[in-house]
Amino acid sequence: MLEHNQEKNMSQKITLREVGLRDGLQIHPTFMPTADKLAWIAAEAAAGMSEIEVTSYVPPKLIPQFADAEQVTLGALKVPNLIVAALIPNMRGAQRGIELGVHKLNFVMSVSETHNMKNVRRPPEDSVTDFKAIVELVKSQPEGKRPIIVGGLSTALGCSYEGRVAVSQVVKYAKQLVEAGADELVVADTVGYADPNQVREVFKAVLSEVGPVIVGAHFHDTRGTGLANVSAALDCGVTHFDASLAGLGGCPFAPGASGNIVMEDLLFMLDSMGLETGVDIEKLIEVRKIISRSLPDIAMQGGLAKAGLPRNYVSVAQRLAAAA
Amino acid sequence: MLEHNQEKNMSQKITLREVGLRDGLQIHPTFMPTADKLAWIAAEAAAGMSEIEVTSYVPPKLIPQFADAEQVTLGALKVPNLIVAALIPNMRGAQRGIELGVHKLNFVMSVSETHNMKNVRRPPEDSVTDFKAIVELVKSQPEGKRPIIVGGLSTALGCSYEGRVAVSQVVKYAKQLVEAGADELVVADTVGYADPNQVREVFKAVLSEVGPVIVGAHFHDTRGTGLANVSAALDCGVTHFDASLAGLGGCPFAPGASGNIVMEDLLFMLDSMGLETGVDIEKLIEVRKIISRSLPDIAMQGGLAKAGLPRNYVSVAQRLAAAA
Repeated sequence: MLEHNQEKNMSQKITLREVGLRDGLQIHPTFMPTADKLAWIAAEAAAGMSEIEVTSYVPPKLIPQFADAEQVTLGALKVPNLIVAALIPNMRGAQRGIELGVHKLNFVMSVSETHNMKNVRRPPEDSVTDFKAIVELVKSQPEGKRPIIVGGLSTALGCSYEGRVAVSQVVKYAKQLVEAGADELVVADTVGYADPNQVREVFKAVLSEVGPVIVGAHFHDTRGTGLANVSAALDCGVTHFDASLAGLGGCPFAPGASGNIVMEDLLFMLDSMGLETGVDIEKLIEVRKIISRSLPDIAMQGGLAKAGLPRNYVSVAQRLAAAA
Repeated sequence: MLEHNQEKNMSQKITLREVGLRDGLQIHPTFMPTADKLAWIAAEAAAGMSEIEVTSYVPPKLIPQFADAEQVTLGALKVPNLIVAALIPNMRGAQRGIELGVHKLNFVMSVSETHNMKNVRRPPEDSVTDFKAIVELVKSQPEGKRPIIVGGLSTALGCSYEGRVAVSQVVKYAKQLVEAGADELVVADTVGYADPNQVREVFKAVLSEVGPVIVGAHFHDTRGTGLANVSAALDCGVTHFDASLAGLGGCPFAPGASGNIVMEDLLFMLDSMGLETGVDIEKLIEVRKIISRSLPDIAMQGGLAKAGLPRNYVSVAQRLAAAA
């Protein structure tokens, strides 16, 4: 018997985006071999993940984990039906991405002034100016070689230096990034401060200002509220969610704390709600083995992987297949 | 600056109920010394917890952890301003609780037939009959000695033997328990199967049938959806939530899996949403030390305890004090 809400939501599609290779590995001290990164990417794409942020175009001296950014990007670009995204901190990163032919550039700036100063040594206004120049470069690329350009707003739901961030500031920079030419936005709870009420308030405000532009949500589960915040964002109509396999990642300010929301648990929640993601739960769980073999010392989170699917669980894919 | 939603919800009061001493310790093989249980109860009451399920009146041969049920109950009854609750599986448990003078009896039955047969060797219908007899005993007590009687519906959001449970079954037994004289109900996701849509569906259906009777929610975080389910239940008007300090508890079917939702993270989420609980977050976190000292081998969950409160966090209590 189908539950009422599952029928109602059956047609709603949700896009999941793996960020573990970037946000998850970023603060991990052990280098994951390039071949393992590519195996992870290939296996997750085979499980149905349509978009993966595979690396970051920062100077390798800053983050040695991304010393293989070129090889990882080129390898990922060979995987069929995968949108290959990468983080860019600045113009140099955008140039590297364009040269490599990456599909999507994720530019990030912090809404909070202190966080932006510490991260990229400039006030948020100057980051918007940088973004405009990057968009110009992106849009000057020949047809077919132009990557999608995403404007990411870090610390939008709280800052480890400043605490709560005014909603008006989030909306201001969201508008400015869209006016500058962002194809999409990502609103991020970088340090895991958000609660569902705050999520509803911030996302409603941003969505009402930026109209049809896709606004993705990037939540961390640092204080346990990650999936509750996803549910609140769903209520607002958000359909694009970042997450990390095994919840890889952490918080430089809180050793041992959880990082990104756990992709497997997020997928289970969405699928159980009757939302279509295109990702196979059991195949996704299998991908964890690539990580645990490659980095035996990394902390892996996740309830579903330990507990397994509910008895007699029928996935959205199975129900769609049965209905076809 | 207050967030809009925080102001709106400022007057809404939420009741948290600690179940760690019962549901948390139930499957833990090491006996927690009675003095430590009483220290936990006293410290949590001092932190503002108004209700604690302190033990279970099952035969000690079945669960040795509750061999000290009498001493724990009598000790807890000396703690000022605390509602002392205990689980009862049957009439014998009710008699023991009444003799001890416990404030609240939490009767449990499973909505799922297989689960009820395995747990108490009778179909759910017979458990309703048992409950009627218990209510008669309770209501025959002299004024001032009559405990509150709660009807608990286990496996209401899924069963580890049967999978999904029909909403109509949950509503049926909820009505029968209220008709039998339950003062309150608790609807439980015993095995952590629920998603927010399902929670909304089940709680809306139950609440619309049982009218003004308090319907508490008891969620497990086995697959990461616990706080998302709380948020969904809040949307339905649920104001009473069970949780366990450090997320103690687990799942006999999934070794290593998480158990009850983590009280500290739940409190953080509610408080951050502007909901008044009366519980002091920092004092509550301190209570964890009693558990880790007493049971060094027990798995303790929780994001807030690792990561700490957000920078410049202002609790509801602090805002109420500032406004007074």
